[in-house]
This record gives sequence, C-alpha cells and structure tokens, in this order.
Amino acid sequence: MLRTHTCGELRSANAGNQVTLCGWVQKVRDKGGMVWVDLRDRYGVTQLIFEEGVTDSAVLTKAKTLGREFVLQVTGEVVERYAKNDNMPTGNIEIKVAALEILNASKVPPFIIDNDTDGGEEVRMKYRYLDLRRNEVRDKLMLRHKMLQATRKYLSDSDFMEVETPVLIKSTPEGARDFVVPSRVNKGEFYALPQSPQTFKQLLMVSGFDRYFQIVKCFRDEDLRADRQPEFTQIDCEMSFVTQEDILNTFEGLTRFLFKEALGVEVGEFVHMQYDDAMRLYGSDKPDVRFGMQFVELNDVAQNKGFSVFDDAELVVGICAEGCGEWTRKQLDALTDYVKRPQVGAKGLVHVKCNEDGTFKSSVDKFFSQEDLKLWADKAGAKSGDLLLVMSGTVNAARKQMNDLRLHMGDLLELKDPMNFKPLWVLDFPLLEWDEDSKRYHAMHHPFTSPKLDQIPMLDTDPGAVKANAYDLVINGVEIGGGSIRIHDKQTQALMFKHLGFSDAEAKAQFGFLMEAFEYGAPPHGGIAFGFDRLCSMFGGSDSIRDFIAFPKNTSARDVMIESPSPIAQEQLEELGLKVVPSL
Amino acid sequence: MLRTHTCGELRSANAGNQVTLCGWVQKVRDKGGMVWVDLRDRYGVTQLIFEEGVTDSAVLTKAKTLGREFVLQVTGEVVERYAKNDNMPTGNIEIKVAALEILNASKVPPFIIDNDTDGGEEVRMKYRYLDLRRNEVRDKLMLRHKMLQATRKYLSDSDFMEVETPVLIKSTPEGARDFVVPSRVNKGEFYALPQSPQTFKQLLMVSGFDRYFQIVKCFRDEDLRADRQPEFTQIDCEMSFVTQEDILNTFEGLTRFLFKEALGVEVGEFVHMQYDDAMRLYGSDKPDVRFGMQFVELNDVAQNKGFSVFDDAELVVGICAEGCGEWTRKQLDALTDYVKRPQVGAKGLVHVKCNEDGTFKSSVDKFFSQEDLKLWADKAGAKSGDLLLVMSGTVNAARKQMNDLRLHMGDLLELKDPMNFKPLWVLDFPLLEWDEDSKRYHAMHHPFTSPKLDQIPMLDTDPGAVKANAYDLVINGVEIGGGSIRIHDKQTQALMFKHLGFSDAEAKAQFGFLMEAFEYGAPPHGGIAFGFDRLCSMFGGSDSIRDFIAFPKNTSARDVMIESPSPIAQEQLEELGLKVVPSL
Repeated sequence: MLRTHTCGELRSANAGNQVTLCGWVQKVRDKGGMVWVDLRDRYGVTQLIFEEGVTDSAVLTKAKTLGREFVLQVTGEVVERYAKNDNMPTGNIEIKVAALEILNASKVPPFIIDNDTDGGEEVRMKYRYLDLRRNEVRDKLMLRHKMLQATRKYLSDSDFMEVETPVLIKSTPEGARDFVVPSRVNKGEFYALPQSPQTFKQLLMVSGFDRYFQIVKCFRDEDLRADRQPEFTQIDCEMSFVTQEDILNTFEGLTRFLFKEALGVEVGEFVHMQYDDAMRLYGSDKPDVRFGMQFVELNDVAQNKGFSVFDDAELVVGICAEGCGEWTRKQLDALTDYVKRPQVGAKGLVHVKCNEDGTFKSSVDKFFSQEDLKLWADKAGAKSGDLLLVMSGTVNAARKQMNDLRLHMGDLLELKDPMNFKPLWVLDFPLLEWDEDSKRYHAMHHPFTSPKLDQIPMLDTDPGAVKANAYDLVINGVEIGGGSIRIHDKQTQALMFKHLGFSDAEAKAQFGFLMEAFEYGAPPHGGIAFGFDRLCSMFGGSDSIRDFIAFPKNTSARDVMIESPSPIAQEQLEELGLKVVPSL
Repeated sequence: MLRTHTCGELRSANAGNQVTLCGWVQKVRDKGGMVWVDLRDRYGVTQLIFEEGVTDSAVLTKAKTLGREFVLQVTGEVVERYAKNDNMPTGNIEIKVAALEILNASKVPPFIIDNDTDGGEEVRMKYRYLDLRRNEVRDKLMLRHKMLQATRKYLSDSDFMEVETPVLIKSTPEGARDFVVPSRVNKGEFYALPQSPQTFKQLLMVSGFDRYFQIVKCFRDEDLRADRQPEFTQIDCEMSFVTQEDILNTFEGLTRFLFKEALGVEVGEFVHMQYDDAMRLYGSDKPDVRFGMQFVELNDVAQNKGFSVFDDAELVVGICAEGCGEWTRKQLDALTDYVKRPQVGAKGLVHVKCNEDGTFKSSVDKFFSQEDLKLWADKAGAKSGDLLLVMSGTVNAARKQMNDLRLHMGDLLELKDPMNFKPLWVLDFPLLEWDEDSKRYHAMHHPFTSPKLDQIPMLDTDPGAVKANAYDLVINGVEIGGGSIRIHDKQTQALMFKHLGFSDAEAKAQFGFLMEAFEYGAPPHGGIAFGFDRLCSMFGGSDSIRDFIAFPKNTSARDVMIESPSPIAQEQLEELGLKVVPSL
C-alpha cells in the first residue's frame, strides 16, 4: 500500500507514530511560516502541518505550491494538536510532515467539492466523477451499498436463491416500450432488454427453485419524468407454495431489516388497506399515511340544496384541516389557485371555517344554512378552529384533485417528515384497467397476475370489477414495490390473454414457452419487486432517485459525461444489416 | 404457506407429527394395495405411503392416478419406516397420507428428470425450466449462489464499495465488438452494452471511492466458442493507492475465502511466475501447474549434429514423461498423430526412451549418438524408465505445439484431477502485442494498462519488449481473471493512445472524459476482474460454463427456450428510425 493509514483513522493514541497517508488536498491555509493542509480520502480528513524551522525547507516550499484536489502522499509523525477540533474524528491529532510527494496535480475543479457546492446540476453531471467526491453524494452511494448487502443477507438467510436471469431477451409489445438490441449473427432479428425478469422468475418456480431473488437492472424506453431512468434497479423475488400473506410477511421482514441495518430505525406497524379503501379515503393507490385528513364523502348532506356544482357532481368530497379555521383570505385564495393549476385541474374549492363560537363561515353560505354546514362538520369530525375543504366532480377527478390538495396541505402544515416512515400494504388491486386510447382493458399489474379465483366468472360480465391477488408496498406516499400471486395454469393464463385482446397466435408467439411450462407441473407461486433506486432515495430522505445512482442519465436519457448515446460507424451498421432512416 | 415443512427436513424425531408437504412426484410405485410416492422439492425427497384399508379409499384412488411431475399438497402423519433408507436424509420416515390435493397436473416430460437423464443437449435447452429441476443442475446454480454471497461478503468486509455502473454506455471501436442499442429519443444514435465497466471503475477511483467492486453482466458480440457466451458475469474490482502486490494479496485472499466457503478446501501456495518464464517453461500464459513436465530447451545439445529439422529450427524443446520409457510403438504413433492434427499443427515428434540399462532408444538414432542423447536426458532430468518428447520449429510454434502435447500427456497420465486446485499468478505481461492483420500493435490487456515506468522510453525503440504491470490469475490452466496497474496521468495515457494508432481526435472522441478526469487529481490505482462463470465451473469441477448459467444461449447466440432473438414490429423499427437491410 502507498499508505499506512487512511485519513479517517488516526487518534491521540497514535501520537508518536510514523505514518504515511494518501489523499486529496481539501484546503490549504498558508500563514507564511506555517502551512496547514486538510488531506481528504473516503474515510475522513486529517490535518497536515508544515512549519518553518521544523519542516525541511524544500518540503515547506513544495507545500506552498499545493492546490485544491492535488493528490498527495505524505509521511510524518502523528502529534497531538494544541487546538483540538471536536467536530472531526481525527480532530485531536495532526501530522508533522517530513516527506511530501505530489502523486498527481489537479486543475482547479469547475465547482467547489464540498457539501455546500457552487456547481449547478448540469456541470456536476458533466463532471460526475468530481461530484462523487463530495461527501454528501458519496454517503448516498454508501447507503446504497449497505442496503444492497443487507437485502441479499436477509433474502439469502431466508433460503432465497440468487439467480442471474438473461439481459438479452425477447421483445414483447405488451406494457412499456422495450429497448432492443440488433443481432449481428441473426440479421434482421433483435433481442430486447428486460423490463423485468418476470417470465424467467416464474420459470424458476416451475423449475422448483422455490425461492428466487436477484437485484437486477431493468430497462424501459419511456419518455422520462424527473424520477424515472431508462435503466433502473429492482429487488426481484418469487416464492412457491405461498399465500399472499406469506409474501407480505416475508417482505415486511425485509423492509424492517433494511430500516434497522441501514438506518437503525425500528418502524411501526405495516397497515393493510384495501385498494378500494385507499381510493375512497385518500383518492390514491399510494396514500401517504404519515398524516390523517382522510376524505369524507358529503353527497348526502351537500347535494339537493340548490348548489348546482355539487348537485351535478358524482362525488362531493371534503377533508378537515385541523386548526386551520383562522386561515386568511390570502391563504385560502392561494389554495384555490393551487387546485386550479392545470396539473390539478379543479374548477374551484369550497371552504368552511369552523369558528371558535360554534358558527360556520363558508364560501357557499348562499346555498347552505348553518345547520347544513354543521352536518358537514360533524361528518368530517371537524371541531371549532378547523377548516373544511370541499371539492366535487366525477368520482375519479374529484378524488385525484382532493389527493393533490391533501398532499399539498401536508406540505404546508409540515406533516411530511421524510425521516418518519409509515409503511402500508395496499391490497386487492383491480385486475384490469380500462384504457381510453385503445378502448380495451389492460392488465393493471401485468398479464400474469391471478384474478381472485371466485371472481373469474365476472371477467365476462363486469371485467373492471374483478379484483386481483395483487399488492403494493407504499411508504410515505411512495410506491416502493408491488407484486401478486400469479396464474399457474394454462387455462387461466389463456383466458387472461383472451380478455387482454391477444389472439391465440399472439399469445403463443410471445409467451408460448410460459404457457407450455405451465403444463409440466407449475406450482402455485407469487412474488414481488421493489424499486431499489426509489427505496434508497426514500431511506436517504430524498425525492430524487438520481442522487442515489452513481452515473445517472438526464431527462433526455443522455449520459452527458461520456456523451452517450452517440452515432456509430457505418461499418457497425452494415455488420448489423441496418440503415438509419433520416428523420423528416 | 401451503406446507408446514419442506420435503428435506423431516426426521425420526418428527414421528407422530401432522404435517403438510408440497412438491413434485418423482416416482410412483403402485403395488395394488400399497402405493408409495416419492415427493420432491428443492430441499429433498420424502416418501408418501397410501395403504388399502388404512388410507381413505378416495385418496388411495386418487394416488393411483398420479403421474411423474404432478404437483401435490399432502397432509398426513409422520411415521417411522419399517425399511429405513440410509441413502437419504429423510430415509427414516414416511408420511401416512390422509389428504391429497393435486395442485397441478403434468404432461409426461420430454426427458427423465433425474441426474441420469435421457435428454440430449438440444431438448434440455428448449425445456431448460425442466432441466433446472434436475438436482445436478440445480446444485451447480446453488454453488453459484453461494459464491456470489461469499464474494460480496469478502469484498464488502474488505472496505470495497459496491457501485452499479451503467449498462447503456457508449460504443468504442477498440477491442471486441459491442452490442449496440438504438436510441429512440436521439434517433440515429446508439448506446452500447459494456464489455466491462473499465472506464467507470477508473472514474470511481478518480472520485476517491478508494475500493470498488461489482458482480456485473458484460457483453461481447463475438463469434461464439463452446465456452463463450454473449453475456457473461464478471467480478469487477478496482483499488487506489496500491501496488501490484497489494492487489495480488487481496485477490489471493478472495480466492482462498471462496475455496473455503464454497468447497471447504484450503488451497496451497499461490505461485508467482513471470510471463516470460511461463512461456519458456510451459509454452503458455496460463500454465497448468498441477503437474510438472516443464519444457527443456535443447538447442545447444541437439543442433549441429546433421539433423536438419533441428538445425533449421529456432527452438528445439522437450519434455520428460516420467515412467513412460516402456510405451509401445502404438502409443508413440498415437502421440505423433496427435501433434500432427491440424489443431496442433506439428510436422512430427521425436522421442527418446531412457532404457532401464542406461541406454537410449530414439526415433533419430541415425543422427545422435548415445552420448548426445545422454546430454538431452541429463538436461531434462530424465531417469531410466522415462520418455523424452522433443519438438522444434519457430519459438512461438514449437512452444504452442509442445504446450498442447504436454496438456495431452497430462490427460493421458491422469495428472489433471479437477478437484486438485493449483493457483498461479502470471506477472509482467507484455504491454503490446503485434497484430498481423492490421500490421500494428494492440494493447494486450487494454489501453489503460500502465507500462513499467522505466520502460516507457522503449515504446519508441522496441515496443514489443515493453512489459506492463499486468497480471493474470490462472488455476489449473484456466485463466480465472486478470488486471493491471492503470495509467493515471493524461500524458502517459495520450502516449499510449498514440502508440496504439489513435489520432488525438479519435482519443478525445472516445475517451476524452477519462483523459479530462485524469487532470483533476487522479490517484494511482489498479484492479482486476474475474470471469465469474468460469470461476463457478472451475469450482464445480466442470469444463462447461454453460452448465453454471441458469438460462444460457447456444453457440449461435440464441435462446432456444424463449426463441430469441426474433423479428420486431415494423412500428418499433420506425420509432427507432431504422430500416432492416435485406441481406444479399
């Protein structure tokens, strides 16, 4: 090793030791006769001291030439500091440098390499290797490292076998868009990169592997949103001979273990909630239950009083904001503006202030008596000093808009502490969802999800009402993972494909191998996948998954550091039997 | 759970317990009044018993309908067997079945699902999910699972940080052929799949991550040989502030740990050998040192005696086969035939028998006296009863041919016990190798490998003689991994690119980001990568890496189970701005 110690490990007990350290110059303080250098590596920072009359003068002179981010190797004696620094683990000592070698110089970096940086997003992404030097960024990847190890330990200790499934697989039109890989050996044919190892893990169950896991890269060629990446990492699992409850217990166990190992946190109860209840009480299939403000449906007390907006609505729905009864006109106008933004899309917002004297003041006093409003307040459990917020519309629109408002209120009232973790299982998702564009049903999870067996006849009569043995893990309003009990027999799988609009030929061409596998003794099985990037960012108390990925792509799916994607040589295209068609 | 126990865990101590098991029918023995069923899962096999007069008659009737690979759930009492079977862990007990549910039926599988199968390679690959049911195949993947966990444990405990590097990167013409991925968002541009995360791991060192590892899929679009796969797995590592010795020690440690954890084997010394010595003594950069038979160069005693074949040769080289002095004419002719095969390509083979009476009998007695042959024998350390085998030619050809012969002799003499592990570090590889096709030097490892610093001036005068700080780990004649100390400054890297025939513009276009990174304080660093598939197959005592991959591709790079690659929809091509060019 070019060093005897790291920059994070020397203590008072090492005083008198001759040591050699390597690292980067974090800071130089040159006071003429004295020069101090903070030397940094992954493990910490150690102070170096060069002193006129003590340090060899050639060494002192060299020390005066050092710039930020130079790479050094120094040898010297560990000494107790006069002025100790309790803020750093090595703050009791410094190194009286006897020998100094500059292992590499550095140009002045394009931004300050410190938690408090002056670099904007763009320049930090272009020089991501410098951004990764910042402790704050490296700490996030260290958290990820820990979570990777802990996940595998838990699963491996629980008899899950890690199996690597192929990356070069087959394109299927169902679901999101695939990335494809042209084959040179089989010209005109393509592999696809997996959106998930779904069919392979089911085949492993058919193989009797019993419990499978993998932490695996998956790929989706979608138009990117802020928190999406074209390649992302998934904790992927599957189990045989289990009920839904077994899967929930196993992965509640994993989640608890991760909180304990990575954060030292003991999380509370994992609440179980029906999908229908989540939609009714929170207007969302991923409710944030760190705070209350559950929805109250007010149709029976708010309709037929002559207020046509409510009368014409499918749903009148309210939430009670505790202690907000004194909000000003300005605050309430801001709320109305918020819900009228195109992203939310509401037409308006009705409020009712529950005054301290037991009276009510609402924006619809013209239509509703004090007695009417008292019924609303009672229904919502509102007390004096509270504020009722009410919206209406179609069931879907009113719920969506009220969900937005509720989450916004959570922000305003500071009810969303990122380090207060409230896990929730949402259960019994619908099997199918109607797609307006294609005028047909799509699988809500994927085509391999098992319907509730007693509801299979309803596939013909009321497909939208059929529930699936499907579940999501939601923490703090973020979907961490989801899964289902799978179909494991050919008949049900064929029925499912039929209801999804596959012809027999299409089903066979795309999933013939799976249908055939089901004929050779497929066991009952189910599984789950966690979005690992999101899990890490949630554990790190951050909204951005990009911060938790070493080399992320930007929202145009570009890596601006290596400048990829990029054109390839004509020769390569010819070998692949491809031609680029100039865009119009 | 649909079961209370697995099929591998019940023992005499469980007698009297009511249990529920799930699994596959391995075998049915129907003796009329008695039916025995062997029920199999991943964990073992348990015997079920159905008996007329004891078992409910409906259950007995159902038991008689069972076929191979049916999936069952059975409930019953654990009883001691009359006839115990010491060959299986559950052999002391059986289950007196009270309830039997057929969870899934099975068609008759296309081959016998047992270690001793009647299925050929092709059918087993098409039905890989059934092949994976065979214990022997699953055991190989269980070994792989164990090695995955142990590798990460060792590296994580040694302060290596696991970092996931991107899969969608940039194509570079240097080295093997890339798989490319067309970009839809940036039409006409392509990502490439990584052949290794080489540049990213070096950037992580520039980032100060100090120690990095990843077990990662890599991709090469090469024409496949039996032991190559288009996607393969690599243990990838990099370290900062280290010498070559530090890397060797760390990965000797990893290798020892893996042998211990996965096989319970304590391996002996890791011999260090210079590349030049490996070539001289074994004619190979990956010598199998499980047995001796080192090469002996005989030019000084075998030339200038009138035998023109030797006289005209650059090298006359021999090996001594101990105790083979009595080999018959037929055996020796077979050896000659072996070296004359086109795969070896020798013109002939000279042998010298060292007789028990101290005389010699050779195939070239016409040219060499007994005294001459005595000199050969002395040089080769041959004793009475030994056999000398001698070949000649150019240095490269004679060494290659003698290497083939030596390995063949190792097979014939049964000196290659697959479970006798002899690790070897081969050190100081040449930096460059001459490529006859392109008439220029290529990097022997890759363009980031550091030359021996004191030999840099020789790059201009004798480039082929420059050695690199590069090393391979070889076990039993198989290259397990390789690595090097890297270049960490821009000047040396630019010099290297120049000598590899890159123009400045090409170097900048392909590796500009790395060259630039070197200007911001890159530390001295080096690393290594192990071929994980091969490591697993070596640990499993097998030559075939395919057996250790869950879903391998065939030698045409096809997955015959899912039928991939395959054509994609015209729509998909149009979205990508691509056209398939019909092949001529």
